[in-house]
Amino acid sequence: MLDTQGPGDLTLDDMRAAHERIGPYIHRTPILTSTCLNEMTGAQLFFKCENFQKAGAFKVRGASNAVFGLSDAQAARGVATHSSGNHALSLSYAAGRRGIPCHVVMPRTAPQAKKDAVRGYGGIITECEPSTSSREEVFARVHAETGADFVHPYNDLRVIAGQATCSAEMLEQTQDLDAVIAPIGGGGMISGTCLTLSNLAPHIEIYAAEPEQADDAYRSFKAGHIIADDAPVTVADGLKVPLKENTWHFVQHNVTDILTASEQEIIDAMRLTWARMKIVIEASCAVPLATILKNPKIFAGKRVGVIITGGNVDLDTLPWIK
Amino acid sequence: MLDTQGPGDLTLDDMRAAHERIGPYIHRTPILTSTCLNEMTGAQLFFKCENFQKAGAFKVRGASNAVFGLSDAQAARGVATHSSGNHALSLSYAAGRRGIPCHVVMPRTAPQAKKDAVRGYGGIITECEPSTSSREEVFARVHAETGADFVHPYNDLRVIAGQATCSAEMLEQTQDLDAVIAPIGGGGMISGTCLTLSNLAPHIEIYAAEPEQADDAYRSFKAGHIIADDAPVTVADGLKVPLKENTWHFVQHNVTDILTASEQEIIDAMRLTWARMKIVIEASCAVPLATILKNPKIFAGKRVGVIITGGNVDLDTLPWIK
Repeated sequence: MLDTQGPGDLTLDDMRAAHERIGPYIHRTPILTSTCLNEMTGAQLFFKCENFQKAGAFKVRGASNAVFGLSDAQAARGVATHSSGNHALSLSYAAGRRGIPCHVVMPRTAPQAKKDAVRGYGGIITECEPSTSSREEVFARVHAETGADFVHPYNDLRVIAGQATCSAEMLEQTQDLDAVIAPIGGGGMISGTCLTLSNLAPHIEIYAAEPEQADDAYRSFKAGHIIADDAPVTVADGLKVPLKENTWHFVQHNVTDILTASEQEIIDAMRLTWARMKIVIEASCAVPLATILKNPKIFAGKRVGVIITGGNVDLDTLPWIK
Repeated sequence: MLDTQGPGDLTLDDMRAAHERIGPYIHRTPILTSTCLNEMTGAQLFFKCENFQKAGAFKVRGASNAVFGLSDAQAARGVATHSSGNHALSLSYAAGRRGIPCHVVMPRTAPQAKKDAVRGYGGIITECEPSTSSREEVFARVHAETGADFVHPYNDLRVIAGQATCSAEMLEQTQDLDAVIAPIGGGGMISGTCLTLSNLAPHIEIYAAEPEQADDAYRSFKAGHIIADDAPVTVADGLKVPLKENTWHFVQHNVTDILTASEQEIIDAMRLTWARMKIVIEASCAVPLATILKNPKIFAGKRVGVIITGGNVDLDTLPWIK
């Protein structure tokens, strides 16, 4: 059972089992490239477009692995989570596909589009204040009342094994990558990326990209222990949450470096991606491109896989339109 | 020589020669699908994503065919055109790839993003008033002064043969289509679609989609002769121009029907595509989806190819944000 193990026990077999389990419920998302962005960065960028994923984000990989790995008895009591958005959507989607209830604790300040979409997938929302402390307090109550299986957005080995399938696909869809970069919030995607790459392609550098205004993972990485902030403020609303022990394990052992970008750099990279690649991406997944543009000495001349983590944007309030 | 022929003389060989000629300068754009939009329409929709095309629009196909088909002597004098936007971008791009000048007459009211992009590709802009009459008057002067080869945005057999390559790719990328739908402005894309489908797959229905507020093609189709409006007003700014004799030929002989949508229906379909498919598309290419949503009796149960013609949007002024 995955949940009796620690993060160091996760293997490629867990990732492969996840990939087989979730195959019917997810897309094998495409890789896109952009001549313009290659010229601007001096690198060759391969964008893994999880914004085209089911439920609009990579998180459906981990959520589906958790939901479809439950025994029937466990599944009957449903699943529950707290999430700033995409994990909530994804768990609701996966639970809906299995026909079981999904309870979601969500900040009242989350984008209306995400709340509507969670309800659209059949998720049952309980709102909390936009802080880690409030979220955990409200969740404990909901969890106790329902008896549902807790699927943490990232500090869950089943979820990490699911996210690991993304970079496995990317390795199949590209050749000779020198580096992979993904945004880091709680660290679920980065941990899955580390699991896959450290085993299948250990020569590939792994970069995590984080907003300066929510740089707890960056400071944790430099300090050598987890530093958590309560309620940071950033346009990259998927990246506000802190590392936890399972994701810290991978960050500490497998990440090459963590790079940060300012709010304006993130917004500019988001707008640039929309304008040049013609794809709708969240602010959170513009952070990698922002850091690539900012650090040509690291990336120029390299073949870089960039994980576009999601596309669930509130189209009525774009950050560059005041 | 193509330019001594009439539209009825165009053959599949012209399309195939165009495809070979322009191959190095264009993308073979992908087909995307959407479970959500299939459920909403009751049809199976296959979106040919020319918003991912070089210069952000299908028009680079026809423009490249014209530019790269010129003799060296002709090419040295450059090319010239008038365009509401995407043809201007595309001709500038193609001329830049060949290293020859490109003169563009453009309405002063065209989106700033398109003017910037034309200049970015090296195009030389002369502005006119936003009416067909002003455009033609200013263009005549520019054309006389430069001696450049006139590449009309759509009433040019080289351009039509180039646009025809889009549906040829779509036929290779899909199976068993029942219908294809594309927006209609001047009719270049629809004419190319007719050229390819009427020869390769004559059983496939061909629908053209047009804004109610610029429905000159619809009225022409019903009347049996070209009706042209001067300066119609619609959010679909690529579709304001009238049919001309070469495109009228194909509309008259090969189009199954022309369907129209209101401004609000177009904006809703545009926003829906961004929200659900996570792709940036212009208002012009939301018109087909708007008409599909509006006409379930025509499309439900069918496999429908939908040509997404371009993605060059002014991201600072989205039509659903007031």
